[in-house]
Amino acid sequence: MSDAAVYTGRAKVRAGILVTGTEVLTGIISDRNGPWLSERLLDLGVDVEMIEIVGDRPGDLLSALGRMGEEGLAVIVTSGGLGPTADDLTAEVVGRFCGREMVLDEDLEARIGEILAPMMTRWPGIDPAAIRASNRKQAVVPQGATILDPVGTAPGLVVPPAQGREGPTVVVLPGPPRELQPMWRTAVETDAFGSAIAGATEYRRGVMRLFGIPESEIANTLRAADGAGLSLHDLEITTCLRRGEIEVTTRFEPSAQKDYDALLEFIASRHADTLFSRDGSTIDEQVTGLLSGRSIAVAESCTGGLMAARLTERPGSSAYFAGGVVAYSNEAKANLVGVDPGLIARVGAVSTEVAQALASGAIERFEASVGVGITGIAGPDGGTEEKPVGFVCFSVLERAGGGLTRSARLPGGRADIRDRATTVTMHLIARLLRGESD
Amino acid sequence: MSDAAVYTGRAKVRAGILVTGTEVLTGIISDRNGPWLSERLLDLGVDVEMIEIVGDRPGDLLSALGRMGEEGLAVIVTSGGLGPTADDLTAEVVGRFCGREMVLDEDLEARIGEILAPMMTRWPGIDPAAIRASNRKQAVVPQGATILDPVGTAPGLVVPPAQGREGPTVVVLPGPPRELQPMWRTAVETDAFGSAIAGATEYRRGVMRLFGIPESEIANTLRAADGAGLSLHDLEITTCLRRGEIEVTTRFEPSAQKDYDALLEFIASRHADTLFSRDGSTIDEQVTGLLSGRSIAVAESCTGGLMAARLTERPGSSAYFAGGVVAYSNEAKANLVGVDPGLIARVGAVSTEVAQALASGAIERFEASVGVGITGIAGPDGGTEEKPVGFVCFSVLERAGGGLTRSARLPGGRADIRDRATTVTMHLIARLLRGESD
Repeated sequence: MSDAAVYTGRAKVRAGILVTGTEVLTGIISDRNGPWLSERLLDLGVDVEMIEIVGDRPGDLLSALGRMGEEGLAVIVTSGGLGPTADDLTAEVVGRFCGREMVLDEDLEARIGEILAPMMTRWPGIDPAAIRASNRKQAVVPQGATILDPVGTAPGLVVPPAQGREGPTVVVLPGPPRELQPMWRTAVETDAFGSAIAGATEYRRGVMRLFGIPESEIANTLRAADGAGLSLHDLEITTCLRRGEIEVTTRFEPSAQKDYDALLEFIASRHADTLFSRDGSTIDEQVTGLLSGRSIAVAESCTGGLMAARLTERPGSSAYFAGGVVAYSNEAKANLVGVDPGLIARVGAVSTEVAQALASGAIERFEASVGVGITGIAGPDGGTEEKPVGFVCFSVLERAGGGLTRSARLPGGRADIRDRATTVTMHLIARLLRGESD
Repeated sequence: MSDAAVYTGRAKVRAGILVTGTEVLTGIISDRNGPWLSERLLDLGVDVEMIEIVGDRPGDLLSALGRMGEEGLAVIVTSGGLGPTADDLTAEVVGRFCGREMVLDEDLEARIGEILAPMMTRWPGIDPAAIRASNRKQAVVPQGATILDPVGTAPGLVVPPAQGREGPTVVVLPGPPRELQPMWRTAVETDAFGSAIAGATEYRRGVMRLFGIPESEIANTLRAADGAGLSLHDLEITTCLRRGEIEVTTRFEPSAQKDYDALLEFIASRHADTLFSRDGSTIDEQVTGLLSGRSIAVAESCTGGLMAARLTERPGSSAYFAGGVVAYSNEAKANLVGVDPGLIARVGAVSTEVAQALASGAIERFEASVGVGITGIAGPDGGTEEKPVGFVCFSVLERAGGGLTRSARLPGGRADIRDRATTVTMHLIARLLRGESD
């Protein structure tokens, strides 16, 4: 999946991430905190050695801390297990791991009480005694820990090893990402965290994005760069295929900036047609910028609303998004978007002609300056030999004239095909707005 | 986040999951394999002790295997690092960990060659010598390992410890989920895997879903169940808040079936109004079933196409999905769905009245039997004191008469609000189709 070139460096300050929660370990929900924390630590120049997920059993949590503790890490960040229930034991286990006694912090107890008061009025019928007991439990923290004020109801902690002990400083954060993320920013500001990561490397990060070539071609290009004498050994290069695009992420110390610049030029010269982002900007950001002052409308079939949803994902999208029609049936294509039923009868609903008619109908119905039409076979049924599952037709047109119309066979299952079709469309929109036309 | 009651059991056969890949460790992409494999292992009666994510460095991989090897696990499943590039070293590192020499398997080399042939014609200009070298590398495997035929281009492996050695059997799988998942099914069938998990516990799994109460209420109910004398110590109960719903997952051995049945009845009696699924079925599955023979159309504003996308997510949705309009602007609401501009001027675009007009316009325009209207403020801008960010109005109407119209203030950021609004709508549709009406 990835190609790390010949980089063998290692940051001086290393960290581990420990995610707790039976619901994460057993696959009921996917962990979002590990990847998020990993990026944040790397941005601080701290190398993440591992992300480990364990259940809610205190023994498993303590074993995991023990295993990670042996790796000479400066910091361990935990997420989860700070809730009010009896099995939310992270604070206590971390206290034991760091050799610190648990004490009740009365100020904290009062602050949590204030947070819970409005919740108790919102959900009448909740037992107040149970709430008070939970409140008190959450205010019992390791002595000497720095307390991070709750974002939800649970406080976070920064817990250095007890005096005279060796070992990592543990940052204890709650599980819900919307609580963890703001609390992380507070944790980073604390003196305790600052001391723990003293001496961290300064990292820069460069991201390039390509669309329309297989991942193996980038591996070949990296080999060619090496062969052409470019210096790659101070660059940590990771390539990754995501939503049909190739993302090349490089981390390097400031002294290797010129090596990175040379690599960027080398890739740009070999992949001029497919390198669409030299600065890490996403295709969604680029389309937003390119649309400036124009409006866009969508008439989509197989993507079922995902194209409109993608165009309205970003805040402020009402400035350029005129509207959309999800025209699954032939009747809807005719009645809502004005596609000629005779055309559908002649060439079939999944055809470049109908994609064009959808795009031009979208322009007309929503009085938009750009129109998008998508029609295809998302599967798993409905494919034929000529138009198999994954066959999708795309058209992006400008009211002022000009447009790009394409068909492609997209890989994967129904969800992949629907998602990938929106990516192809975003790239067609960007090309059209940059002046390309059939 | 979770409440594991008082269950302290442990399966006899335990496993660990080791996910490799710098792109996963550094947060560039989220791991989907760990949670998926964890569920599969639990279904086989194998308890997962940890999921660990490490980078592509062979040293890190070997250390992680070493750490996990000390925990007395029967099985370790790895994902990733089987690609054709030089840093894809999982097979070799696992060979070393299991004490087995690496040997070239010529049959496998030939099979991979056959798989690569059509790819080479699809991407002309790729260097054939480089392809052959990659091909050969992927055919070098630990001696005595069971080979799992490639789904993409990389073979998988089941590698028991070398004769006379103790330790886990390692199942080596590729990183891309669409290769890993079918290959897992093959791995489970092998004799080597069967011997490794001999003696696994038989687990049953029960899932209940509730909508419309806070998670803490379920924690209270579990305490009440314990207090009422229900036997919970053979049930492993995990509660989790997902997309606004509470999911209660319980694992138990067949001998505890009656305890689970009693718990289900206890929860059903206390939460009759909010327990919508006793059998684990999702609201999406229920809505699909309830729509049988009817058609549904959507006119949505703040959800921007996500409601239509959710209703078309499942295969076969064209049987009931009539179509959708994404009416962001007031003009689109009037022109495409027939909402009276005077009404919008009088009560505002975000109002229960406009939600009703959208739902009834959707019925009319798409000739549907059920219409959905959604209008709200997804933010981050556009909120007022009276109608803050997160305020959303919903209406679901039947052509035949009857309907449910509601407003709610949804928590979280733009993405959460958009997603949560679709969940609220799905529940309103289900209630309407079950006969509720204002």
